[in-house]
Amino acid sequence: MDGSGINNKWIGQRTIRPDGAEKVTGGATFGADFRLPGMLWGKVLRSPHAHAVIKSINLDKAAAMPGVKAVMSGADLVHFPVDKPVMVGPADMRFVSRNVMAREKVLYAGHAVAAVAATSVKIAQDALALIDVEYDVLPHVIDVDEAIKPDAPILHDFLRTGGIDPKPETASNVANRLEFSLGDLEEGFAAADVVVERTFKTKPIHQGYIEPHACLVNVTNDGQATIWSSSQGHFMVRNATAKMTGVNVADIRAIPAEIGGGFGGKTIVYLEPLAFTLSRLSGAPVKMVMTREEVLRATVPTSGSSDTVKIGATKDGKIVAGTATYRFQAGAFPGSPVRAAASCAFAPYDIENVMVEGYDVVMNRPKSNAYRAPGAPIAAFTVESVIDELADKLGIDPLEFRIKNAAKEGTRAAYGPTFRKIGFVETLEAAKRHPHFSAPLGPNQGRGLACGFWFNVGGESSAQVHINEDGTVTVITGHPDIGGSRASMVNITAEMLGIDYTLVRAQIGDTNSIGVSATTGGSRVTFAAGMAVTQVTEKVIQTLRERAAKIWEIDVEAVEWQDGKARPAGANAGDFEPLSLADIAAKATVTGGPINGQISINAQGAAPAFATHICDVEVDKETGRVEILRYTAVQDAGRAVHPSYVEGQIQGGVAQGVGWALNEEYIYDDDGQMENPGFLDYRMPVASDLPMIDTVVIEVPNDAHPHGVRGVGEVPIAPPMAAVANAIENAVGLRLSDLPMSPPKVLAALDSAS
Amino acid sequence: MDGSGINNKWIGQRTIRPDGAEKVTGGATFGADFRLPGMLWGKVLRSPHAHAVIKSINLDKAAAMPGVKAVMSGADLVHFPVDKPVMVGPADMRFVSRNVMAREKVLYAGHAVAAVAATSVKIAQDALALIDVEYDVLPHVIDVDEAIKPDAPILHDFLRTGGIDPKPETASNVANRLEFSLGDLEEGFAAADVVVERTFKTKPIHQGYIEPHACLVNVTNDGQATIWSSSQGHFMVRNATAKMTGVNVADIRAIPAEIGGGFGGKTIVYLEPLAFTLSRLSGAPVKMVMTREEVLRATVPTSGSSDTVKIGATKDGKIVAGTATYRFQAGAFPGSPVRAAASCAFAPYDIENVMVEGYDVVMNRPKSNAYRAPGAPIAAFTVESVIDELADKLGIDPLEFRIKNAAKEGTRAAYGPTFRKIGFVETLEAAKRHPHFSAPLGPNQGRGLACGFWFNVGGESSAQVHINEDGTVTVITGHPDIGGSRASMVNITAEMLGIDYTLVRAQIGDTNSIGVSATTGGSRVTFAAGMAVTQVTEKVIQTLRERAAKIWEIDVEAVEWQDGKARPAGANAGDFEPLSLADIAAKATVTGGPINGQISINAQGAAPAFATHICDVEVDKETGRVEILRYTAVQDAGRAVHPSYVEGQIQGGVAQGVGWALNEEYIYDDDGQMENPGFLDYRMPVASDLPMIDTVVIEVPNDAHPHGVRGVGEVPIAPPMAAVANAIENAVGLRLSDLPMSPPKVLAALDSAS
Repeated sequence: MDGSGINNKWIGQRTIRPDGAEKVTGGATFGADFRLPGMLWGKVLRSPHAHAVIKSINLDKAAAMPGVKAVMSGADLVHFPVDKPVMVGPADMRFVSRNVMAREKVLYAGHAVAAVAATSVKIAQDALALIDVEYDVLPHVIDVDEAIKPDAPILHDFLRTGGIDPKPETASNVANRLEFSLGDLEEGFAAADVVVERTFKTKPIHQGYIEPHACLVNVTNDGQATIWSSSQGHFMVRNATAKMTGVNVADIRAIPAEIGGGFGGKTIVYLEPLAFTLSRLSGAPVKMVMTREEVLRATVPTSGSSDTVKIGATKDGKIVAGTATYRFQAGAFPGSPVRAAASCAFAPYDIENVMVEGYDVVMNRPKSNAYRAPGAPIAAFTVESVIDELADKLGIDPLEFRIKNAAKEGTRAAYGPTFRKIGFVETLEAAKRHPHFSAPLGPNQGRGLACGFWFNVGGESSAQVHINEDGTVTVITGHPDIGGSRASMVNITAEMLGIDYTLVRAQIGDTNSIGVSATTGGSRVTFAAGMAVTQVTEKVIQTLRERAAKIWEIDVEAVEWQDGKARPAGANAGDFEPLSLADIAAKATVTGGPINGQISINAQGAAPAFATHICDVEVDKETGRVEILRYTAVQDAGRAVHPSYVEGQIQGGVAQGVGWALNEEYIYDDDGQMENPGFLDYRMPVASDLPMIDTVVIEVPNDAHPHGVRGVGEVPIAPPMAAVANAIENAVGLRLSDLPMSPPKVLAALDSAS
Repeated sequence: MDGSGINNKWIGQRTIRPDGAEKVTGGATFGADFRLPGMLWGKVLRSPHAHAVIKSINLDKAAAMPGVKAVMSGADLVHFPVDKPVMVGPADMRFVSRNVMAREKVLYAGHAVAAVAATSVKIAQDALALIDVEYDVLPHVIDVDEAIKPDAPILHDFLRTGGIDPKPETASNVANRLEFSLGDLEEGFAAADVVVERTFKTKPIHQGYIEPHACLVNVTNDGQATIWSSSQGHFMVRNATAKMTGVNVADIRAIPAEIGGGFGGKTIVYLEPLAFTLSRLSGAPVKMVMTREEVLRATVPTSGSSDTVKIGATKDGKIVAGTATYRFQAGAFPGSPVRAAASCAFAPYDIENVMVEGYDVVMNRPKSNAYRAPGAPIAAFTVESVIDELADKLGIDPLEFRIKNAAKEGTRAAYGPTFRKIGFVETLEAAKRHPHFSAPLGPNQGRGLACGFWFNVGGESSAQVHINEDGTVTVITGHPDIGGSRASMVNITAEMLGIDYTLVRAQIGDTNSIGVSATTGGSRVTFAAGMAVTQVTEKVIQTLRERAAKIWEIDVEAVEWQDGKARPAGANAGDFEPLSLADIAAKATVTGGPINGQISINAQGAAPAFATHICDVEVDKETGRVEILRYTAVQDAGRAVHPSYVEGQIQGGVAQGVGWALNEEYIYDDDGQMENPGFLDYRMPVASDLPMIDTVVIEVPNDAHPHGVRGVGEVPIAPPMAAVANAIENAVGLRLSDLPMSPPKVLAALDSAS
């Protein structure tokens, strides 16, 4: 059970997926699959304007329509004054609540304004047309560089945090500015023989989860409510909904659906507080399901950005200084991942002199939110592009250049911490050894290398382990199974108990069956829930030893747990037949009652993940189309508890990163309307766009985790954009800095180069 | 929080029922309310014969019928050899499984023989007619006195336990004989001045729960199953179904429905293993709901009996000896509650010389099972009738006679234990003081007094207490809420935490959210789950003190929990503002993570309940109809955690006891067919049959329970039959000993007396 994985029986095995059969046969229950007798359908009226004051909302005509059972606007939710944060985990309810339903203003086209619940979807939809909203349309701003200008239309009069001055007199769209620094920048650049400075632009990208947001909410006569919904954290759903509707947390039970993708986009609520309010008003259960268009127009993309990176190195290949500026699109409310981007930017490298600044900028787009390693892909795209160019200018192999400057144990990162044992160099060396790295290339083909960094986090997780009456085992955690957490928990529990993994079943507890478990994000679940499961299994093993001692009438110290059995240990323990889990379970009643354990922890000791990707492309010079020929992703997992899921996470991250690199973008018209709100026009990669993505899992254990786990879900989306860009440069000599690198842009760049 | 109840804020209060609004408005989800997409309907083919060998079952034609998706017979369940017990809690799977579906023989008309699952109820019902079962019909026996005879038709060839000899050579319908004794019987009766000996007959009675058995079972492709059903114990459902279907307990999740009455009748499964098997065979969810006729023909009544009681007393009113013989109808399989009846018989009295014997007898009736204080009502009916007659013969007031002989602290009961503090005398004295006891009576009116005893039990219960993010509280237990356990758990938790009860919500955890919790029965839940909730709340309070100590940076010993707040305690603790639950919850993440606790116990220290009932009747001499004019039930609850539910339990028990006394019975024809399988013919009391039932709750705390709880649900059904019989005797001088005392029987007795 040590981090080395030596002699592990189940940790590291590709055990049969506990959620597999149900998911592939259509049996699994997703957010839209719940129904109750007498259920109503809720629909949302959305703003047609990108920016407007709401002068009045008249719901009377809609309410009077036959079949309509409840109507609501933002006035039906709790009012949070703008001058004081109201936090639910990392989310500020002042903003989340105003995003769930507009109050004073609409801030983007698609912003929720009112909602109805009716006996059918058709009636609900028709009733929306009867809602009279009087708007006072304002000028709007979409682009981050425009929004930052002093004369830009201002979204929030109360935002006074712009610029460096924390209390300027005039309102600003700059919600926050942050800065990290290390060493002496001037001195650093002075020592550089070569300096490269580049600017970049990236577009907001949607997480593209296949399952639209959906929920069913039932508020009973005495105010006790149940929420069934798809989310990345049902405790967050419960807590945020309670806050926005003004009820006690204990009055809500949130039951998680299986989740059809989240990638950060389901770490916050949209529909639940509305369905809750409509159910409370109507006295009936209310179901709400978004269309794909609503998902794209009104839910959270990750930020687009405008960025500058400058790096200097000596001619022998030592990076001596780096600066970066990130201007992030927060969307309609503050809260872009610019801090994470700024933190990740230079984290992979040991650089003495660093300065990074970040701007969180609001504009008339949907509020941004987390998307898989939020901020890190933009950091990697910008820094890894400049690193590559620098290596090129220095005439050093880009991989060797990275190895030479790589962060290792003891390196202090600009954003604060000093690294414990990390596996970055190991990923670079594995990439170097990989046949892909030295495979031949054809004409118009190129190879790019890029690296990525992600923190990984810990936090609150809870776990229960129950020894059932027949000695089989149930392990319960409180996180929706997004990336295979059931399988990981089974592997860990079976490993520790020393029993066959088929005797262990994993379950996801709802909010009324397990301790608070924070939202799935930050690649935290296998790390934090795995730590909780480990600790509670240790407690259960201690109980099993106590029960065996009681049965044998010997001291508990004379009982050891080994290979799934209690065994007498030591010379004086006595001679007893080992007792299996089933033997001990059969006697549980008379030895003290049911055997189980429960724990809640705030897991500490998360350790970062590093990845090195190699990407081969071929550029079609006639069309500008870039084809991904071959892709190899090397990543330090710390410990791959279930390798198939780890590989799946890596492949998924790469696929999404390639989409971000080559095709995905929100396209707006002059009125601030999204022009491509559907998967035909919002171009995500499909199977035919991608080769098989090879994965190489490195295991440099996290010494602060009982099984060495680091977290694997996010870092694989960080390198692809830079890897693709560097490959394009290698293929055709074009250094592209404006995402997506779609055929028209590539063609234009080819044209202007020739 | 002590047993005295002094200064309790919530324990003992009539707080608003957490399950009330949903139950009275139709929102609560009962066993038949669950549905899933693609669900099939299961129906059961039942034996038309009271006793027959199954020669063959051919399912082919039924299986071939369009719409039929699965067919099964007993061969599809696990085979349990008859020679070795297979226990699930107190239930022997050899018998339960053969009752769920017949194997070698059918043993009563209505015995399940085969089942089908089809796309509609109609198709399933029609398919049953296509199942060919070849029977070899055998002679049958219905009456217990007949079944006990050496030449009776034998149900089970393997039963060799008849008579006193544990291994007689010939098979017998007597499954078991037991005996308790104390002192010297001969000496005892020799000292008696008056001896009364009477024989009694009682009929089997159905629990009459309003909700028929119902379940929905979904077995997925990889064998993981969910069971939704109405039962008195979902852990029992899970465990018994796993055993009968041969799967791991961990593979089944059992989710409890609200329960529409159980009274002991839902402590065992009928449909769940069948629906499980049909779901496994068909690959679709299967729903099964019994009709009322099925409930009456094929589910478990309590035993009818044939009994003899003999008691001797001195002329100054001291009971010196007692014997009793109970011959109980076990129905088709061993397991009547004769042991409990024999134990309860003389338990209320301090008698030096006692002998009680009991016979557990099988016959061609549905298998018997628990019904509210199983056995105790027959014990009370027989003993309390004889006690009354004895008092009459001695010319002593029957209440004073009982007080004189009442068991008290230190009395040794014939069935074993020596009583700790008990409240029997207190109930008698409260009855004596009650205005009812001395109210005038009219012509043909009479007053009867009778007492009852029930053990109450402890056993396995689990509890969780969660402090939610806003400081509200969720308390979770693992027992279906049958008699108000949600309310009791809320009162206990709110009391101990010192917060308003509306901030505490109770939930029933399913098998995958809480530790094993034994079946609700034995009036155990408020006692045992209340003990678990108390212990876990103590743990949580300790954690709250630790967190406050951490916030204040002082020793935990210097923090006390009082009135819902952590407060510095002692001279050197320092000067801090008290911290509320909400204050501490808000800082839970940074002080160590979520605050909660979980426990599983095997609760010890259950203490018996005693009841004294006063009943006034008027006998209509023309029709034989007995009207209940007034009824007062006095009972020692130990501590009434929620008095309204305690009173409800008492009133319900009395109502059922009156039905048992006056009208309820199974009527069989010569072929062993039940003739009254419906509520029109099986005559349960309705509202117009009963007066308001007055209750007097005495509180003599159980010193082994942290709040003094004894258990209240069962003892109120023990006295009514004797109270009614004694009242009839008082009214018209007839001592009836054959239940029910229905109009024809009363009229016949009046005729033969005149």
